[in-house]
Amino acid sequence: MADGATATRRKRGGGRAGNAARRGTAVIEQSPWRIPVNIDRPIEPLTPEGVEAIHNAAMEILEEIGIEFLHDDALAILREAGCTIDGQNVRMGRDFVMEMVAKAPAEFTITPRNPDHTITIGGKAILFGNVSSPPNYWDMELGRKLPGTREMCQNLLKLTQYFNCIHFAGGYPVEPVDIHASVRHLDVLYDKLTLTDKAMHAYSLGKERVEDVMEMVRIAGGLSHEEFEATPRMYTNINSTSPLKHDEPMLDGWMRMARRGQGLVVTPFTLAGAMAPVTMAGAVAQSLAEALCAIALAQYIRPGVPCVIGTFTSNVDMKSGAPAFGTPEYMRATQMTGQMARFYGLPLRSSGVCAANVPDGQAMWETSNSLWAAVQSGTNMIYHAAGWLEGGLIASPEKFVMDCEVIQQIQRYMEPEILDTSPEALAVDAIREVGAGGHFFGIQHTQDRYTAAFYQPFLSDWRNFEAWEAAGAVWTPERAHRIYKDIVGAFEPPAMDDGIRDELADFVARRKAEGGAPTDF
Amino acid sequence: MADGATATRRKRGGGRAGNAARRGTAVIEQSPWRIPVNIDRPIEPLTPEGVEAIHNAAMEILEEIGIEFLHDDALAILREAGCTIDGQNVRMGRDFVMEMVAKAPAEFTITPRNPDHTITIGGKAILFGNVSSPPNYWDMELGRKLPGTREMCQNLLKLTQYFNCIHFAGGYPVEPVDIHASVRHLDVLYDKLTLTDKAMHAYSLGKERVEDVMEMVRIAGGLSHEEFEATPRMYTNINSTSPLKHDEPMLDGWMRMARRGQGLVVTPFTLAGAMAPVTMAGAVAQSLAEALCAIALAQYIRPGVPCVIGTFTSNVDMKSGAPAFGTPEYMRATQMTGQMARFYGLPLRSSGVCAANVPDGQAMWETSNSLWAAVQSGTNMIYHAAGWLEGGLIASPEKFVMDCEVIQQIQRYMEPEILDTSPEALAVDAIREVGAGGHFFGIQHTQDRYTAAFYQPFLSDWRNFEAWEAAGAVWTPERAHRIYKDIVGAFEPPAMDDGIRDELADFVARRKAEGGAPTDF
Repeated sequence: MADGATATRRKRGGGRAGNAARRGTAVIEQSPWRIPVNIDRPIEPLTPEGVEAIHNAAMEILEEIGIEFLHDDALAILREAGCTIDGQNVRMGRDFVMEMVAKAPAEFTITPRNPDHTITIGGKAILFGNVSSPPNYWDMELGRKLPGTREMCQNLLKLTQYFNCIHFAGGYPVEPVDIHASVRHLDVLYDKLTLTDKAMHAYSLGKERVEDVMEMVRIAGGLSHEEFEATPRMYTNINSTSPLKHDEPMLDGWMRMARRGQGLVVTPFTLAGAMAPVTMAGAVAQSLAEALCAIALAQYIRPGVPCVIGTFTSNVDMKSGAPAFGTPEYMRATQMTGQMARFYGLPLRSSGVCAANVPDGQAMWETSNSLWAAVQSGTNMIYHAAGWLEGGLIASPEKFVMDCEVIQQIQRYMEPEILDTSPEALAVDAIREVGAGGHFFGIQHTQDRYTAAFYQPFLSDWRNFEAWEAAGAVWTPERAHRIYKDIVGAFEPPAMDDGIRDELADFVARRKAEGGAPTDF
Repeated sequence: MADGATATRRKRGGGRAGNAARRGTAVIEQSPWRIPVNIDRPIEPLTPEGVEAIHNAAMEILEEIGIEFLHDDALAILREAGCTIDGQNVRMGRDFVMEMVAKAPAEFTITPRNPDHTITIGGKAILFGNVSSPPNYWDMELGRKLPGTREMCQNLLKLTQYFNCIHFAGGYPVEPVDIHASVRHLDVLYDKLTLTDKAMHAYSLGKERVEDVMEMVRIAGGLSHEEFEATPRMYTNINSTSPLKHDEPMLDGWMRMARRGQGLVVTPFTLAGAMAPVTMAGAVAQSLAEALCAIALAQYIRPGVPCVIGTFTSNVDMKSGAPAFGTPEYMRATQMTGQMARFYGLPLRSSGVCAANVPDGQAMWETSNSLWAAVQSGTNMIYHAAGWLEGGLIASPEKFVMDCEVIQQIQRYMEPEILDTSPEALAVDAIREVGAGGHFFGIQHTQDRYTAAFYQPFLSDWRNFEAWEAAGAVWTPERAHRIYKDIVGAFEPPAMDDGIRDELADFVARRKAEGGAPTDF
């Protein structure tokens, strides 16, 4: 661990903020922070020939059709690397792609300002992130959809920090459109870095934003520039403009972050039937091609920089053209991409998603489908795992709380002690002791284990109907709303050294005075 | 196929009832009837040593502790078979158990009165059944929980028949307590056999009920006694009284059905921490012991009779003692039991379950967890897959409709065409044709495939928020309620020969005149 991280740790824990964190935790009894290990064998729906066929299709796309790179530096670099450039179209041979992809590590860490919240990406680790980037917000109290504000964004960041089952902070949990776009990144990053201490994301939306965010993350971590670059402290996620195009701002951020050794996630948005073929294998092949060429670029710029392959392959509703999520086709595409990610030796990102507009039954079966697909696919980073509605157009705190209940259960599901087959767990002596017609409530074997034996929910209501009715007959989203209000009401931010907070505030003030970032790209 | 079945088929299809069935189908566009094949490799959480350890624990329970069989004939038969009988306690050696279990077929069929609805149980087939046996009912219109009535039961049977994704009719979908218990089985079976034509269940609740139901199924199928016994036409499910006891009525029905070669499912209800050890491996081992001894009895009575091993292992809420369902522990216990069922070469039954009291988000994440556990465990029969609430104490038509949406998606998920990696599916030519920045909506490759490319929901609302709001902002359970009312309103029963209907009615009248079944056991 770098000196900076140790220094950060030294400043934490005591005084007002320490007590606050403990107070905040008491709102609900939640599972502890941990890096869950996915102990299940992935579902691999492709035959070895199928893997080969999808790989060949992706390579054919890269070799024969090519991808547009709308960035002059990227084109120059790829020309130097031996790719065939025709205008903005770049074709690259499979040998080059595979040579570059092989340089990416199978596993890496991101160390946020609180090193206790360091995350491992790759291998069997499975991490969950909050909802990112909806323009709108909905909650039970409002009862309607409204454009996001800074306060809504802050409240969702508080949930992001509060829940131990959320490992990283994605993009803005809702876009605060009440802040001007030129300075939005400054205010939100100030909020993110003071309200949370988890691994942090920067939008690749132009040079100024990326540089500002990297600088703010460096300041918040109390790091020198060397320390910042020594190991990933943050990450970005870029989306190709499917089909077959990488836009300038995305590429610019991608290359800047690559040069400084930060985490890189590339996630094509290949909706089958719209921006990709109507057939899932075709949509997956196209998605892989779009992702792999960006990874090849990053590896050429800085060999060994950590890269993650993302999938967002789903299908449209062929009646309306609307995107659908958590569908059977979505699940299979995620699993197929997982199988291909292992073929390429790359960590995988997928998502927790739904098309539902409110946090009801549909929202939960669609989200459950997508979360289980993430588990089954061997996904390492699950974006949007808490709080997403309406295909990503709405962020909802109730949905956030509901999703965290599901996520905690998935994390508990991964604990190997459930599967213990030791003589004590087989409990033949306890069965003998109780005998026919007895019960296990009172015996020593139960007494010794019952407090930790089973998952304990914070939101699920397991009482019978009469007890539930007597307590007000409260449906799940209303219960989630109350928990959301309690958490936000009791929230106190994680510890931060006053000097660092001042330095962050000064940076924001200076950059605002300079006009922030251009908004005309 | 037996002559009786052919005769039945001849009577179907034409005239009034045929038109009715077609009209009924038009309420929603649903997936066609099919026997889904589970193409995923099961999740096997146990090591080979773990399998051996659980097997040994189950055998130790059977050899050393023993199970109580509260039935004199069963005791006599098991004594003859060489088991050690001590009062009602039966101990049996592992050689005997394994020899008997090996006689059970790995796969069998049940042929209902409509042979087009024949089901295959075992192998990779995965079948879904309706909710069974709740004493109470809840729907959106009532807004409260009430004891079941015959009308509620009939409406749920109409849903059972209507949905193609439901393959078999379990017990009464709600207990109609407005019919006296002595004749309840006669009225409900008349309703079941006239409102549905799917594979049928008999409660093992005493000699008269079992014999009456077998006779009614025989009459409804237009079968001779020989035809009825030639191949399974129905099935029963018995539950042990955990821990370690089989009650008289259950054993009586079990043995009667065994002698006549019908399907036999045994499902211990081993709630970890209450009727079984607090440790999941112990609860699974106990469940296996309780199930295997009943299967050994059946195989001794009629070698080769089809048997299914059931699991209902879950955990209690250790705060309240209330049963919990769809939990992480439930999922793992189901997977472990699936792994053991394959070890014994037996088909597996599990369930779609939840603890939620209303059809909200909690209901759907708990049910999704249990349904995915069924898929992951290689379950062949999924009981209670549609309509269950409050840990099985409430049947709900809205939940039924919502569950069918999820079940249809699981069945679609199993269709291998999603995974097609042929050159046409890889669609490199289509990707070339569209090029960078184009879209796939209009091209021939899409036009040729779009109507069947993706799962089409009947309940999920994929419209954006504004369109959904303009259409009344209807949440999922309300949408499900409307669909339920429409289906029941348009329902017409499947075709049945008038002579057979009269014969059934006569049988019911005669048995009622005789007093039905005793109610004092």
